[in-house]
Amino acid sequence: MSEIRGGRAARTAGPVHIVGAGLLGASVGLGLRELGVDVTLEDLSPTTVALAADYGAGRVRDASDPEPALVVVATPPDVTADAVEAALARFTESTVTDVASVKLAPYETLRARGLDLTRYVGSHPMAGRERGGAIMARADLFTARPWIICRDGETPAASLAVVEAVALDLGASPLEMTPEDHDRAVGVVSHLPQIVSSLLAGRLLAAPDPAVGLAGQGLRDTTRIASSDPELWVQILTANRGPVVELLDGVHADLESLIAALRDVDAPGAKRAIAGFLADGNRGVARIPGKHGSSERFVRLTVLVDDQPGELGRLLTELGELGVNMEDLRLEHSPGAQIGFAEIAVLPEVVEDARRDLTERGWRTL
Amino acid sequence: MSEIRGGRAARTAGPVHIVGAGLLGASVGLGLRELGVDVTLEDLSPTTVALAADYGAGRVRDASDPEPALVVVATPPDVTADAVEAALARFTESTVTDVASVKLAPYETLRARGLDLTRYVGSHPMAGRERGGAIMARADLFTARPWIICRDGETPAASLAVVEAVALDLGASPLEMTPEDHDRAVGVVSHLPQIVSSLLAGRLLAAPDPAVGLAGQGLRDTTRIASSDPELWVQILTANRGPVVELLDGVHADLESLIAALRDVDAPGAKRAIAGFLADGNRGVARIPGKHGSSERFVRLTVLVDDQPGELGRLLTELGELGVNMEDLRLEHSPGAQIGFAEIAVLPEVVEDARRDLTERGWRTL
Repeated sequence: MSEIRGGRAARTAGPVHIVGAGLLGASVGLGLRELGVDVTLEDLSPTTVALAADYGAGRVRDASDPEPALVVVATPPDVTADAVEAALARFTESTVTDVASVKLAPYETLRARGLDLTRYVGSHPMAGRERGGAIMARADLFTARPWIICRDGETPAASLAVVEAVALDLGASPLEMTPEDHDRAVGVVSHLPQIVSSLLAGRLLAAPDPAVGLAGQGLRDTTRIASSDPELWVQILTANRGPVVELLDGVHADLESLIAALRDVDAPGAKRAIAGFLADGNRGVARIPGKHGSSERFVRLTVLVDDQPGELGRLLTELGELGVNMEDLRLEHSPGAQIGFAEIAVLPEVVEDARRDLTERGWRTL
Repeated sequence: MSEIRGGRAARTAGPVHIVGAGLLGASVGLGLRELGVDVTLEDLSPTTVALAADYGAGRVRDASDPEPALVVVATPPDVTADAVEAALARFTESTVTDVASVKLAPYETLRARGLDLTRYVGSHPMAGRERGGAIMARADLFTARPWIICRDGETPAASLAVVEAVALDLGASPLEMTPEDHDRAVGVVSHLPQIVSSLLAGRLLAAPDPAVGLAGQGLRDTTRIASSDPELWVQILTANRGPVVELLDGVHADLESLIAALRDVDAPGAKRAIAGFLADGNRGVARIPGKHGSSERFVRLTVLVDDQPGELGRLLTELGELGVNMEDLRLEHSPGAQIGFAEIAVLPEVVEDARRDLTERGWRTL
């Protein structure tokens, strides 16, 4: 009975031991504890491990604890390989996984050391928050997120199943990839956006105040992730430098072509080169699946909302009464304005009815 | 009495004549018509002008109409100077403004032609939509947006006042800048984000489907504006190539330094260079004022919301009941998931109470 909470039975057989009780480690612990799995914790920092334990992410491991069924290494990426090797040596029967956001470098390091890796299966839950630390941990952090699992030819089905079970228990979608494919994929969907956002945000340093004061939604969206933690990202970019540099070489070539075309816009083909560059961006963004990227599947309806508590709630309650299911919502608010814009994405077939119904109820739509 | 609608009196004395009945021209017309101002329209396309007139943006100008008090040139940027010159010649008493998103190039072109520009005041309402055309026009398009006005040393106060009156009538915030300052400012807050977003989105073309399938919020935010109209943007970037190329040279230098550091991460100073690059991004994004950019002023509270009509409305109604004023809201929804995340930005001093109150009411927070 201890394995059942809230009507859900854990697939994961404990005990699970977590090495590194930061955001990811403590979140794994919290989620598994909710399902009744026995979780033990360790961290280089006694404060961090005590905090995570207080949070309910598990208990601090002591010498009398039995060998864990699974060890989850959730350390910073630059010590992942060492922590995996230490776990394999210390626990001779346990399956060991890690949750680092780069997969090839730790795997190659471990292979180069001649270790038997049949008990190791690398993984990467694609979840995170802007701020790290056990205090930011949440049991639901992995809900509906991809959880990449990297087996190799020697990985037994039993080891793979142990890691898949944890991913499923935490509400994530397990997905198998090779370390090479994983690293190239996160290079383009995660590491390159980070770099491009930082490149852009860095240019704001030299801009005068009145210019920065004109910032609109485009600048805000493109620079949001530029506020990420530099220390963590130095480790990530360094560990995945192969795919990242390859992507940056492509950006570099595109940038040089664009600069050349803009320097001499009357040269033959210059305007066509600029248009082609912009059209490639159109086609690239159209490839992103899901609600936010699918500008072709949904249309946007903008409603003016007074800047008062409850006004947006009233709007959305009325949308519910009208039977309109929002596919996405974005709130925009200009500094100093007493009015905001709620941008609602809906299916094309309902937008005109929704606009008419809202107008009848006194809402102003754009 | 015809100058008053909805309790608002127009500052603008008509008639106002609009040249170019696309998104911006038709929106100016709709907004002024709501205040009872007499508006006439023209466009190279008879279909466009008829559509805008049907929409209520004004009436098609005919030969018997008197000289307008103000002409608003709302053509594509590459014909702005010609259209301004034509308007100054055709109407010998009218004030003439334009709404092009680049200000120095048309001004210099007009100066080079030796024209008397005392009746011309360039301007730029910083508003737009992802799609253009009269059919997308809205009277509220300019509400709470900056409207840059570029006078020169010869601009009489009367001409300036006419343009300011239109901006104020349309709910915008008039702001004086020189054409040079304007172009440098929009270069960094608007044109550079567009280019960087397109650069990133272009890299998605070569990525395999499973990689693009891992797209998260970071990629979606940074590539959203990459779906903008290439034809319009070729004109904008071409017209503002001076400031844009200068900014791109800075991006180019930063990119080359980053690539060099990543190619040889063990070289002295390489990791420090990467960290410095990321830290510059942190400091740059922190300069953006207002609700969205102010990650330091507000904290984010994430609430899980079932994907059903009315659920988000119920959440926001309850936030209203609890007296919590949201500073920002973002809805995230993974494809296929039956659950979404409402990320609410609130003042730091209310977040813990809000979290507790919501939890007591049965909401799950992250």
